[in-house]
Amino acid sequence: MDYITPQRDILFSLSEVLGYCAHSTQLQNAESVDDELLASILGEAAKFVEAELNPLYRSGDEQGCRLEGETVSTPEGFVEAYTRYIENGWPSLAAHSEFGGQGLPYSMHTLLSELLGSANWSWSMYAGLSQGALNTIFAHGRAAQKQRYLPHLVSGSWTGTMCLTEPHCGTDLGMLRTRAEPNDNGGYTLTGNKIFISSGDHDLTENIVHIVLARLPNAPAGTKGISLFIVPKMRIDEEGNITGRNTVNVGRLEEKMGIHGNATCALNFDGAEAELIGPPHQGLACMFTFMNLARIGTSIQGLSHCERAYQGALHYAKDRLQSRDLRGAARPDLPADPLTTHPDVRRMLLTQKAYAEGLRLMLYDLACTADLAHEGLDEAQQKLAILTPIAKALATELGIECASLGVQVLGGHGYIREWGMEQNLRDARIGSLYEGTTGIQALDLLGRKIVGSNGALLRPVLAHIDQRARRSDSPHAPVLLNALALWRDTSEALLLAAWSDPREIGAASVEYLLLAGHVLLGYYWLCADETATAATAQSDEPFYRAKRKTAHFYFQRLLPKIEGYAACLRGGAQALMAHDDDEL
Amino acid sequence: MDYITPQRDILFSLSEVLGYCAHSTQLQNAESVDDELLASILGEAAKFVEAELNPLYRSGDEQGCRLEGETVSTPEGFVEAYTRYIENGWPSLAAHSEFGGQGLPYSMHTLLSELLGSANWSWSMYAGLSQGALNTIFAHGRAAQKQRYLPHLVSGSWTGTMCLTEPHCGTDLGMLRTRAEPNDNGGYTLTGNKIFISSGDHDLTENIVHIVLARLPNAPAGTKGISLFIVPKMRIDEEGNITGRNTVNVGRLEEKMGIHGNATCALNFDGAEAELIGPPHQGLACMFTFMNLARIGTSIQGLSHCERAYQGALHYAKDRLQSRDLRGAARPDLPADPLTTHPDVRRMLLTQKAYAEGLRLMLYDLACTADLAHEGLDEAQQKLAILTPIAKALATELGIECASLGVQVLGGHGYIREWGMEQNLRDARIGSLYEGTTGIQALDLLGRKIVGSNGALLRPVLAHIDQRARRSDSPHAPVLLNALALWRDTSEALLLAAWSDPREIGAASVEYLLLAGHVLLGYYWLCADETATAATAQSDEPFYRAKRKTAHFYFQRLLPKIEGYAACLRGGAQALMAHDDDEL
Repeated sequence: MDYITPQRDILFSLSEVLGYCAHSTQLQNAESVDDELLASILGEAAKFVEAELNPLYRSGDEQGCRLEGETVSTPEGFVEAYTRYIENGWPSLAAHSEFGGQGLPYSMHTLLSELLGSANWSWSMYAGLSQGALNTIFAHGRAAQKQRYLPHLVSGSWTGTMCLTEPHCGTDLGMLRTRAEPNDNGGYTLTGNKIFISSGDHDLTENIVHIVLARLPNAPAGTKGISLFIVPKMRIDEEGNITGRNTVNVGRLEEKMGIHGNATCALNFDGAEAELIGPPHQGLACMFTFMNLARIGTSIQGLSHCERAYQGALHYAKDRLQSRDLRGAARPDLPADPLTTHPDVRRMLLTQKAYAEGLRLMLYDLACTADLAHEGLDEAQQKLAILTPIAKALATELGIECASLGVQVLGGHGYIREWGMEQNLRDARIGSLYEGTTGIQALDLLGRKIVGSNGALLRPVLAHIDQRARRSDSPHAPVLLNALALWRDTSEALLLAAWSDPREIGAASVEYLLLAGHVLLGYYWLCADETATAATAQSDEPFYRAKRKTAHFYFQRLLPKIEGYAACLRGGAQALMAHDDDEL
Repeated sequence: MDYITPQRDILFSLSEVLGYCAHSTQLQNAESVDDELLASILGEAAKFVEAELNPLYRSGDEQGCRLEGETVSTPEGFVEAYTRYIENGWPSLAAHSEFGGQGLPYSMHTLLSELLGSANWSWSMYAGLSQGALNTIFAHGRAAQKQRYLPHLVSGSWTGTMCLTEPHCGTDLGMLRTRAEPNDNGGYTLTGNKIFISSGDHDLTENIVHIVLARLPNAPAGTKGISLFIVPKMRIDEEGNITGRNTVNVGRLEEKMGIHGNATCALNFDGAEAELIGPPHQGLACMFTFMNLARIGTSIQGLSHCERAYQGALHYAKDRLQSRDLRGAARPDLPADPLTTHPDVRRMLLTQKAYAEGLRLMLYDLACTADLAHEGLDEAQQKLAILTPIAKALATELGIECASLGVQVLGGHGYIREWGMEQNLRDARIGSLYEGTTGIQALDLLGRKIVGSNGALLRPVLAHIDQRARRSDSPHAPVLLNALALWRDTSEALLLAAWSDPREIGAASVEYLLLAGHVLLGYYWLCADETATAATAQSDEPFYRAKRKTAHFYFQRLLPKIEGYAACLRGGAQALMAHDDDEL
């Protein structure tokens, strides 16, 4: 099933609802983007992904990656598509002009990410991780490091990775064992084993820049003794010329449920040449530059899988004739009515549609907030702190849910390879696992951010939604205000409960995040409804009518899920902690 | 990750909660089963599945089935395991003694199904579908047909299939096109294409008995013109001796998301020799004998995947050390605390445990109800009519949810093949699709059964739970009564709404079924809690303490989900039906 870029909805979200043009104009560190430029970039990107990446969606899954000798071969066509990707200058879209970038806002890369990811998530990860490496070196590298690495990452002639996980630790990076010893030439010799390295090796570029967490000799124990290193796959000299192979070897390619087109590697660093980046022992803080961007990037995966599932399911449901309208034949001219006639099929389709379009607004707003945070605005930093874990966890969970609905709408046909819906689910499933599981995002949100600030970080977010809803004349505003009250009350109850037992945080965290995420989606749907309502006064485009109806659906049929989340989390920690080990 | 049969919990469910011994004694048409016999059959079955089927779990998935020439080869070891299965007499467990069966109640086969299915779902489907073919021929076959086919199906020397779906119709069987023409020798010549035939071909037995829906010449249109046929893969004579190949050919093996060890075939019937079974044009009614059993069988799949996911996740969570208790180190002697320390991990594990154990009670009660219905008891027939669609849809949906939690508990390790959790999810995913999707079960429940009887079929079920809860002194009884009130009120509101617009049925149906299913699980957990509470007066076995704590968890943290289902379905049909076709 082919992916068609939803250009109309992307423009609606960015231009009409979020006022992207005005947003970009206020940025000091980026070029501004007017509506014409936006539409033109979007159109070109759509052409690229539909022509180059979408055709590799199924073959990439079927062929997967192969470890041949010392290096990984990607599926047929991946190299050629990547060559075209860099020829077209896509990697440099949002990079600083000093290093050859086009200087557009970071949020423009997010838009590109949606298209790349929806057309071919596995392929897009090779390009996506480079952006994290690029931004990490830009933020923390010395001038010489920037000069050596950034032009290659900006042009896309090299890609990047992030190397955190080891066999015995993923979430708990304080336990990591990879060691870096200073050597005679001012550099370091790095030794250790990393696993689950996405895009860890491939044949797309001549070099790969690994950003690696490791310990210096005599480093303090735990997370305060971790430093950050650059370890190129191929050694380079001062000018950035490749001088030979570094001792970074692919130990294994993981056999995974999905994303078979992306090489998930176990990497062995056997005394590899490494450069320290950022201050010693501050590696985890520096890595958060990478990780926060990677979390936004991963949230896009959720949107991509919702969108792809919706397109596939809708296409099938419009064509497939099966059973009759419960009131009697809707299309007596046909042997049976189309699936779109049946209320429960519509419930599934509209769930996908409402989540995809709502997430699009949420994630583009998140990207714009990242633009502003990048400008050093405190308010934006704070909003980002709340929004990032919600967006990452919510979007990937909904990506899985909608991908599964994509299978469900097609019935048995969804379970076989032919229609691409089962691949979409297999690919989606990793979203809630990497870059911090849903449980970790939820702890970050409720524990570190909300309880950690005693509610201070949350209050402006709630106040903003409250004000927006109060001055709205949308029929959904009172519904949103009720939902907001539930979010606020739940937050206050948990702030109190955490005082007496911090385990109440972990016990409530995931359901709390889902509740908060659904209220936030309600906020974005209110904004969309207002914009569409205003537009329908001047236009009878079905797009705006559809938008209002989908908003109505969201408030009537999806937002009420929060009643269930709230009721479950009220059950509290004790019900979770009562079993002794031998009672599990 | 190995599967270990939960013998203690199975005996608790059957003997202690459901009073299986007394149940079996009252059956006229089956041998009675005392506690000793039950434990001994369970123990032998556990030995068989753990030694023969569990070792083929991963290799069966990796190797899959292959179409070689005219026949399908199953993965290595499948044939040998099947040979042992019939040598041990397992297929005949619940079959009538007239045809070589052991004459035990049908519910004993359900117990066996749980073990076979948990150890290796793909393998178990070869055996499982035979039971449906066997029961269909037993119920509708002429004496000669029974004599020819049943001894082979009972002994397991032949297997069976059910052939309904065609490329253009699955749910809507009224559209099927396969035709059966009478021939000169009193039989029929059957021509057509069937797809998605589970166990459609294989190398386990010398013959396969296909039960096929087709149309006679001049049959009325729609479902009233469908007849049922027996089409053996190998032609047989009057005595049941094989005389040569019938014209049933495997057109294709489907490439699926999971259950790779089971051969899902497209079958071409090219003028195949067929026998009519049951009255002409009554095929669909006859097929429901098969389908209702297949639905109970498929509900077992949900239980199996919950159980397997729980065992895998628990094993990993007890061993894996990562991060610290939110109150400070729980195990300062270790480099980090076990995953079981963390509230959200416990939430996921207990969700799996509470669903697996609750479903076990529900499905064994369903099987006992089927025993009673088989005796011709109207009351049991009516209970079965309500319970079957709930059990099939709920169990398979929860099987998918728990399998996904199994992946989630393991983090990145859940996504790779090594631990078996991703296979469990891929295998589980088909459960809500075949034998009638969740949407179809929900329409059957709310539309055909509840609205169709104007609530009459539902009332005794509600009354029974009400009475049980009212005379219970469990602390959870009031919680269950509240939940029951919500089920009742929701049912009444929908009975009313359906009068004005039948689409309200389809719009509410899936969330209604999930609500009803969770209240029913609450009923079973109340029963379990009472039994365990009484037992703890005499025993300090951790098993009973655990049972009470898991009941508490269910009522505190899972049953409240019904608030969300109720709130969402209250959104009604209009929000689903508003979009025009060009607005989707």
